Amino acid sequence: MINIAVLGYGTIGSGVVEVLKTNGDSIQKRAGDRINIKYVLDIREFPGDPIMEILVHDYNVILNDPEVKIVIEVMGGIEPAYTYVKQALLNGKSVVTSNKELVAKHGAELIDIAKERELNFLFEASVGGGIPIIRPLNQSLTADEIVEITGILNGTTNYILTKMSEEGISFEEALKNAQALGYAERNPSADVDGYDACRKIAILSSLAYGMQVDFEDIYTEGISGITDIDIKYAQKLDARIKLFATSIREDEKEVYAMVAPMMIRSNHPLYSVGDVFNGIYVRGNVIGDVMFYGSGAGKLPTASAVVADIVDAAKHLNKNIWTIWSSKKLELMDIDSVKHRFFVRIDKKKALLDDMRRIFGDITEVPEVVENEAAFITPLITEKEMKDKMEHIPGLLSRIRVRF
Amino acid sequence: MINIAVLGYGTIGSGVVEVLKTNGDSIQKRAGDRINIKYVLDIREFPGDPIMEILVHDYNVILNDPEVKIVIEVMGGIEPAYTYVKQALLNGKSVVTSNKELVAKHGAELIDIAKERELNFLFEASVGGGIPIIRPLNQSLTADEIVEITGILNGTTNYILTKMSEEGISFEEALKNAQALGYAERNPSADVDGYDACRKIAILSSLAYGMQVDFEDIYTEGISGITDIDIKYAQKLDARIKLFATSIREDEKEVYAMVAPMMIRSNHPLYSVGDVFNGIYVRGNVIGDVMFYGSGAGKLPTASAVVADIVDAAKHLNKNIWTIWSSKKLELMDIDSVKHRFFVRIDKKKALLDDMRRIFGDITEVPEVVENEAAFITPLITEKEMKDKMEHIPGLLSRIRVRF
Repeated sequence: MINIAVLGYGTIGSGVVEVLKTNGDSIQKRAGDRINIKYVLDIREFPGDPIMEILVHDYNVILNDPEVKIVIEVMGGIEPAYTYVKQALLNGKSVVTSNKELVAKHGAELIDIAKERELNFLFEASVGGGIPIIRPLNQSLTADEIVEITGILNGTTNYILTKMSEEGISFEEALKNAQALGYAERNPSADVDGYDACRKIAILSSLAYGMQVDFEDIYTEGISGITDIDIKYAQKLDARIKLFATSIREDEKEVYAMVAPMMIRSNHPLYSVGDVFNGIYVRGNVIGDVMFYGSGAGKLPTASAVVADIVDAAKHLNKNIWTIWSSKKLELMDIDSVKHRFFVRIDKKKALLDDMRRIFGDITEVPEVVENEAAFITPLITEKEMKDKMEHIPGLLSRIRVRF
Repeated sequence: MINIAVLGYGTIGSGVVEVLKTNGDSIQKRAGDRINIKYVLDIREFPGDPIMEILVHDYNVILNDPEVKIVIEVMGGIEPAYTYVKQALLNGKSVVTSNKELVAKHGAELIDIAKERELNFLFEASVGGGIPIIRPLNQSLTADEIVEITGILNGTTNYILTKMSEEGISFEEALKNAQALGYAERNPSADVDGYDACRKIAILSSLAYGMQVDFEDIYTEGISGITDIDIKYAQKLDARIKLFATSIREDEKEVYAMVAPMMIRSNHPLYSVGDVFNGIYVRGNVIGDVMFYGSGAGKLPTASAVVADIVDAAKHLNKNIWTIWSSKKLELMDIDSVKHRFFVRIDKKKALLDDMRRIFGDITEVPEVVENEAAFITPLITEKEMKDKMEHIPGLLSRIRVRF
């Protein structure tokens, strides 16, 4: 019997308890031993819930119990999660977490502490919910030099963009629907402004390149500026707008990373990733293209990833599973020198396509969708050039990067 | 330094040598030690190739060299691969293979031998080329009871079906193109008759359910009966025809497995898997839907999977990575009792839709694509019922299972 403690009895925590109960037999077979939840930590009470029998409010009870071999941190946020997790590792307990903020900020340090003590710090659930991506990056794509990781990593924004496209509704209306369905928080900023996706691509990039990628360094743009008219133009172009979180190694050297809406066509592997689903596309110099798809959030899919980590930690109680993520900082390429093509909409009363030709050179016209507007796609130019040129477009309505 | 030997210097063997050379530095970092190819075994000579320095023709040289810790079997076929692999394991060497015939037939036994000796028998490259699927099934989806695995597991047939659909050409013509491009063998039976996909779904099913699924028990139908007219009807129905290799656990109990062409619509995760690509869809009782996509064959993608296994074997030289695949046979459900809807085409000169209504009950008419033909989709009926009813359809032109 292997004793574990679950920190936080919220959505994911209760999911973990449920999964360990529902699939107990097969999990025991896979882990090689029975997994027993000895404690659940939460500041709240849960009258009537059988969990009350093992509920504790004081973390020290868990920390000082040598029988607890694995601590499951599913509280979220940096504190007290960081302190608890570090204490657990220093006290000889492996840790499994679903906490992307914690992993993005302190992953390298916590991996090091686990490594020194032949423990494990596992975080499959921190990116892509149930989709296996951390373990494949760590253990399956080991023959490759990773050249690109691009993900649709935030279910809420993907749901909003899908609904805007399918139903022709505005961003605000789609967001309201997402909130009504519980897909979006009352304060949706972390999702719609791209901060959530930013932390996740920071984690994936750190693993892919084996060095610390600081999320603060990643250029991040959300979807709140995307309008129903942009979506109509995308449809006219046989394209879809997706919030891409991407990191690309250019010329086998420098890496750039960014989170931004992107227009893609059906030849892109992530094109058909709709609704709240996530997809992660990886390109290696040997394997070529690989894509992983599934539920990027939700109680049970996320709990599935947490429990898979628990199984792995149970199978490796005194043996560190090697993770390459050094604390050495990866200096990202200056985003200003990254090149894209841009879809641009202008107000015809203030500027004309001929003006645009003078500014951008060889542009591709886009058939009109809305009266008094003109739209076009720029040639490949740097972000810096685009910023500079935008200052000279009086009637600029929107600009979205294009990947086709 | 960890010494390995490569058995077979064909496409995959030379790919493995190339990948170990190209990505040597990062592979060393991941494996924790340098991987050194001490021998390559082949009956042929390769004059002028630097491989000559380490080429041997006698397997005993490898078998009796205690310095060789990992043997890479990339010869294909059952013999002498089976004998060589077994001898290697019995002599204390771990084995990595890309050989689906070997794994489907002797996987359970070889896994057992490896387990008893704290060695490893790894076979990521045997299914889905470079796509990580064996390791995710083994180590990532461990919290779930697998309810379904469905794959497009054969690149050749997927290429043929894609070209038939895109270019409106016949099966024979598409096959010839595939042969000209080297995607199909001169004798294409293993691919087009579904035998290749059958062995692969047998391997995946054995891993998913933890018991031996014999490939001989799997109902297997190829694509040589699919005509350009079938494809036209599929397009009329907004559907595509794909060769599905599937195993499904019905009612949480019995499992059935089959390889057969299937009509699917764009809501199926495998719909957009085109050309020579493979896709594997997995449904778990907790995680929901997950899909893996990538190059299912080819020298470098397959070599990438082989080398990832070499890295794993190198990191676990004296520690077995647990694989649940017991030699206990899984008795599959009788295929006769499996239910599908069927798309059916009939010769209007010999039978009428009204006759079909008498035979099948509530059918769904399909708009005519070809003169003198009628087409419809049956209600959900068992394979047995379909077989029996087919005897009473005089002008039957084709029947294809439908998954929508």
